[in-house]
Amino acid sequence: MKAIVKTGENKGFSYMDVEKPQPKPNEVLFEVEAAAICGTDIHYYHWNQSAKNFASKFNVKFPFIVGHECSGTVVEIGRDVKSVKAGDRISLETHIPCGQCFQCQNDNVHNCMHMDIYGTSCNGSFADFALAPESVVFKISDNVSFEEGALFEPAGVAMHSVERAQLEPGDTALVIGCGPIGLLGIMILYAHGAAQVIAVDVDDYKLNIAKKLGAITVNSAKEDLAAIVKQHTARRGGADVILEMSGNPKVYETIFNHLRLEGRIVTVGHPGEPVSINITQNINLKGASIKGIFGRHIWKTWWKLSSLVDARRINILDAVTHRFKFEQVNEAFEQVGKGAGKILFVK
Amino acid sequence: MKAIVKTGENKGFSYMDVEKPQPKPNEVLFEVEAAAICGTDIHYYHWNQSAKNFASKFNVKFPFIVGHECSGTVVEIGRDVKSVKAGDRISLETHIPCGQCFQCQNDNVHNCMHMDIYGTSCNGSFADFALAPESVVFKISDNVSFEEGALFEPAGVAMHSVERAQLEPGDTALVIGCGPIGLLGIMILYAHGAAQVIAVDVDDYKLNIAKKLGAITVNSAKEDLAAIVKQHTARRGGADVILEMSGNPKVYETIFNHLRLEGRIVTVGHPGEPVSINITQNINLKGASIKGIFGRHIWKTWWKLSSLVDARRINILDAVTHRFKFEQVNEAFEQVGKGAGKILFVK
Amino acid sequence: MKAIVKTGENKGFSYMDVEKPQPKPNEVLFEVEAAAICGTDIHYYHWNQSAKNFASKFNVKFPFIVGHECSGTVVEIGRDVKSVKAGDRISLETHIPCGQCFQCQNDNVHNCMHMDIYGTSCNGSFADFALAPESVVFKISDNVSFEEGALFEPAGVAMHSVERAQLEPGDTALVIGCGPIGLLGIMILYAHGAAQVIAVDVDDYKLNIAKKLGAITVNSAKEDLAAIVKQHTARRGGADVILEMSGNPKVYETIFNHLRLEGRIVTVGHPGEPVSINITQNINLKGASIKGIFGRHIWKTWWKLSSLVDARRINILDAVTHRFKFEQVNEAFEQVGKGAGKILFVK
Amino acid sequence: MKAIVKTGENKGFSYMDVEKPQPKPNEVLFEVEAAAICGTDIHYYHWNQSAKNFASKFNVKFPFIVGHECSGTVVEIGRDVKSVKAGDRISLETHIPCGQCFQCQNDNVHNCMHMDIYGTSCNGSFADFALAPESVVFKISDNVSFEEGALFEPAGVAMHSVERAQLEPGDTALVIGCGPIGLLGIMILYAHGAAQVIAVDVDDYKLNIAKKLGAITVNSAKEDLAAIVKQHTARRGGADVILEMSGNPKVYETIFNHLRLEGRIVTVGHPGEPVSINITQNINLKGASIKGIFGRHIWKTWWKLSSLVDARRINILDAVTHRFKFEQVNEAFEQVGKGAGKILFVK
Repeated sequence: MKAIVKTGENKGFSYMDVEKPQPKPNEVLFEVEAAAICGTDIHYYHWNQSAKNFASKFNVKFPFIVGHECSGTVVEIGRDVKSVKAGDRISLETHIPCGQCFQCQNDNVHNCMHMDIYGTSCNGSFADFALAPESVVFKISDNVSFEEGALFEPAGVAMHSVERAQLEPGDTALVIGCGPIGLLGIMILYAHGAAQVIAVDVDDYKLNIAKKLGAITVNSAKEDLAAIVKQHTARRGGADVILEMSGNPKVYETIFNHLRLEGRIVTVGHPGEPVSINITQNINLKGASIKGIFGRHIWKTWWKLSSLVDARRINILDAVTHRFKFEQVNEAFEQVGKGAGKILFVK
Repeated sequence: MKAIVKTGENKGFSYMDVEKPQPKPNEVLFEVEAAAICGTDIHYYHWNQSAKNFASKFNVKFPFIVGHECSGTVVEIGRDVKSVKAGDRISLETHIPCGQCFQCQNDNVHNCMHMDIYGTSCNGSFADFALAPESVVFKISDNVSFEEGALFEPAGVAMHSVERAQLEPGDTALVIGCGPIGLLGIMILYAHGAAQVIAVDVDDYKLNIAKKLGAITVNSAKEDLAAIVKQHTARRGGADVILEMSGNPKVYETIFNHLRLEGRIVTVGHPGEPVSINITQNINLKGASIKGIFGRHIWKTWWKLSSLVDARRINILDAVTHRFKFEQVNEAFEQVGKGAGKILFVK
Repeated sequence: MKAIVKTGENKGFSYMDVEKPQPKPNEVLFEVEAAAICGTDIHYYHWNQSAKNFASKFNVKFPFIVGHECSGTVVEIGRDVKSVKAGDRISLETHIPCGQCFQCQNDNVHNCMHMDIYGTSCNGSFADFALAPESVVFKISDNVSFEEGALFEPAGVAMHSVERAQLEPGDTALVIGCGPIGLLGIMILYAHGAAQVIAVDVDDYKLNIAKKLGAITVNSAKEDLAAIVKQHTARRGGADVILEMSGNPKVYETIFNHLRLEGRIVTVGHPGEPVSINITQNINLKGASIKGIFGRHIWKTWWKLSSLVDARRINILDAVTHRFKFEQVNEAFEQVGKGAGKILFVK
Repeated sequence: MKAIVKTGENKGFSYMDVEKPQPKPNEVLFEVEAAAICGTDIHYYHWNQSAKNFASKFNVKFPFIVGHECSGTVVEIGRDVKSVKAGDRISLETHIPCGQCFQCQNDNVHNCMHMDIYGTSCNGSFADFALAPESVVFKISDNVSFEEGALFEPAGVAMHSVERAQLEPGDTALVIGCGPIGLLGIMILYAHGAAQVIAVDVDDYKLNIAKKLGAITVNSAKEDLAAIVKQHTARRGGADVILEMSGNPKVYETIFNHLRLEGRIVTVGHPGEPVSINITQNINLKGASIKGIFGRHIWKTWWKLSSLVDARRINILDAVTHRFKFEQVNEAFEQVGKGAGKILFVK
């Protein structure tokens, strides 16, 4: 079979022949039906510092098949697998939990103390067929398309950030960064009852998609973000919730100006360097919170998200701008730099 | 000026001349711009047992001007009033709190230990002009119409029931009873992220409105409610949340059959007699909750609701089916028995 | 080896020789070090209506070894067991989850849709050695005694009831019924920050234990419960939280009189017949909640409880009044009717 | 009458004669029975940069009577005051809310958008008699001493930090900084069900008090804090909750090392300079939260705290090490630098 492989510490991926794998007792073999490109994959493509940090933290060994956002059809199951059978339609969680540590036993399976990362600590799913431990397999209903199933993992990041922000219906949310997670965030904020979503980026291509999703858009390179936030949140004194999805460390210089007293910032983007924070003025006297997320709740976020998609309450495919085949892997990854929302691999 | 007055313990109301009131130091005088008929008003019209119970609990004295769901324009303010001024557009909370008891000091202002009820313990707002203590006045934005403002109080009941149900996005909710609160509940459930709302009634007129609001409708006199709930909640084993808005005591004979394990029932309708509940089977082994609500959170519910309306995320006027003038008071109240959603009084 | 066996639908248990079991791949064999008598065991001893209902719901097959509250030392593990090894000290959860249903995937493992009950659906732990699926095994620290470990399951019921009651520090709680769960409840309420616990029973023997645990005690057969609750909750208008642990259906005739507005009742006792509830007066206008619990959170409750015991913040053995050996089984169960707190089986 | 007055931007306070004030319509005049020294008072005494920042933010005008932590007996009430009468025993909230803004209407009265600060924006309570607006007066029960009442405000800071930390019973909390708020925090953490409190300081005098309150103490200048935290939280991988009460910016260099995955840090101390935070490693991948607090919940925190004190569940006077008379003002403030827990002014 064919797969997209990272063979070493150089730029790029290899689309190459690999042996079709066989499931161990607790594993599921599935045919990959759709897949999506994550920020981590892009770091791996370029093998930049973020890639090195993440790969080292989660034990990468070359060569490995990359990719983790995907959906598929179960082909074969290991001896001990009980929750799915051949023919079932599935999506995959990326965080592989031990199931036994304090975090796993306290409803934080997504941040397991001994976590492996699918497509990093083990082979991933940019391939004709892939293996996955039963513990990360999520059955999807017939009403959900494979393309949608391939987006549950990143849409889950967006949803978990909204969960952690404790958004209340009627709130105004500020989304900083309109990459794929930001775009999915806009939809999911509205689905949670946000009254207004203000979306910020410096890229009009992305802002146009954000606008179609119903956001009030601001190009912060051209427009006065502070004034626009103020205008839309006059009675509250700022946004109730801010989702920081850009990873740009400069954002932290002014982010608190846009937050109301007792507001919540959820950090999703990964800044490449430490940021400076005035605890006294911006956290204490404001009664503000900064909250990080890693992954999405297993399986609460998945059930919430898939139920909304199943009932056609949100259309997560609205974040998709490009579709490629696996053999177009280099074209697909080069498209990222040229302007893209979410990019799918399809058959 | 003219007002709709309850003069004694007989059926009906009198539309009559009364003296225009003057505000005390902490009161606001406003011109009534729109008003709406509540279930309590209907009980008062007929002066049935519910009316007697409620009137006695909250110290009715004849004659009194009825009505409490309303909006208006401030005309004059008392000496100590600070939060509004003449010309401001307002809506009114019905629960008049003392502001000093344990409940008022613990974020339960809506269920004050010494609560008065507007339009019951004092004169109400079915009149050309009305008084209200400053403590129940809520400013509405220019973006909200007077008709919408007149519905904030009942829509607030629907919203507070959803809050108490702790609805999670992706949940399936069952709404029993498609009167005005049930209809408002459907909209507000969807605004909170419900994936599916199943709405039940025995009146096709009301069910048709529910269907337009996006609900899956069930006429329980003709259709098999249990089977329909089961079909739509197969993987969860029942509805996550049930809002009981009919007040029909018979509903309690089967309501738990439709609820999933660990599900929540919020009781909004007032049954006229005690109901029988099998605690062991339906509460304990199910891990189920029954929760009551009285009124709506002051002022959290109001802010959430008005922000959603202001941003045009929900159109609460979709629950309105009839509009009358105050002078048509008897026609308006007789319409209730003939089939109606929410009924407004307009100028 | 010896075990306490229920051989059929008659009163009593048999202490008899049985074959020592062998673990299946996912099972743990352990030597039982301490065990405790649960209300369910008492029903099984007498084989009353409650026993029949529960046994039928959870698929009892005669003969079976009874008992489920226990601790032990792991002797041997099945091929697939990873979380414990021989020599480990353990306690057991009674609810055996499927791990795959909606409830299991949404943090309600304790109320699994396909749940088995240890010591009911399969053999239990009143025996020299016992088997358990790995999924219900909880490791206990060296700082926790085997007697304490044997009480984690029932203390977990008490703790889960306090969790569900959403007790706030400073609250006054009313505990109705001072059986073992009620006594454990008193300790756990104080550990959660209750300012006052008022404990009610008709049995002075139990009330004396409650008093030693710091409760304000009321013998409701001799004293005016309503007056005492009123005296201790004057400014709040009633108890914030009521834990109903008696299962006496008559309690529901007056229970709401003792509850403040917006208060919460958690039902733990299993009334043998339906109860009548005035929804309008006692749930709606009060803004009250009734919440059921079944079991305890897996594993949050276990971690919370065991951490408190490990740090010596609570002494759950204070609820124990009698200790027997397995061979004294009939004496132990007859003691229940003569007056007892928690009864342990020890070596 | 006599009062402690800040006359200008110099070091020190003046104990001097001032005119006894008269209450305006919404004000209460009370005889000050006990008072306590807050960190803000200490800044004002030295008139350092923190004093200047705070004074400027909250509109200080010289001369003004300082002090805000206090209790007293009502002597006279203004015309419109309803909640207290002469002879009532009271304590005072420091945050004076407008009562009408978004924050005030959404259960964040303590962080009002137009907040004044008692003893800063207006005269304070280090005086024989003092005025206060009715909106900040809290009645204390006969069971609470005046000394205890004088500590409700600072103990409320400690309690609000625990509330915001969402401490679960069984958790291990790390308290950094054993000043008065840290000491009160230790008690309140245990009252909320903390299994272990690890208290850190560099001052053995303070650590000795912390030890008496039940904390595991660490002198971080002499002992290996990281190792000690690790030893006490081995199975969880760090503290569940950290209360940063030192205000030392260097603490932020290592604070995340002591926090478990998904843990919460509440910042109470005011660092005098911005701190550097690695969002990616310490917030995102950890799933950690940093939350600020300003003041305490009005009036939930007060009710919780006063109910615990009233029922003798905590003894907040255990944090007190020195008592002075107002005339010893300079001696009292110089004691701070020599070593002190909480310092009271008593009659």
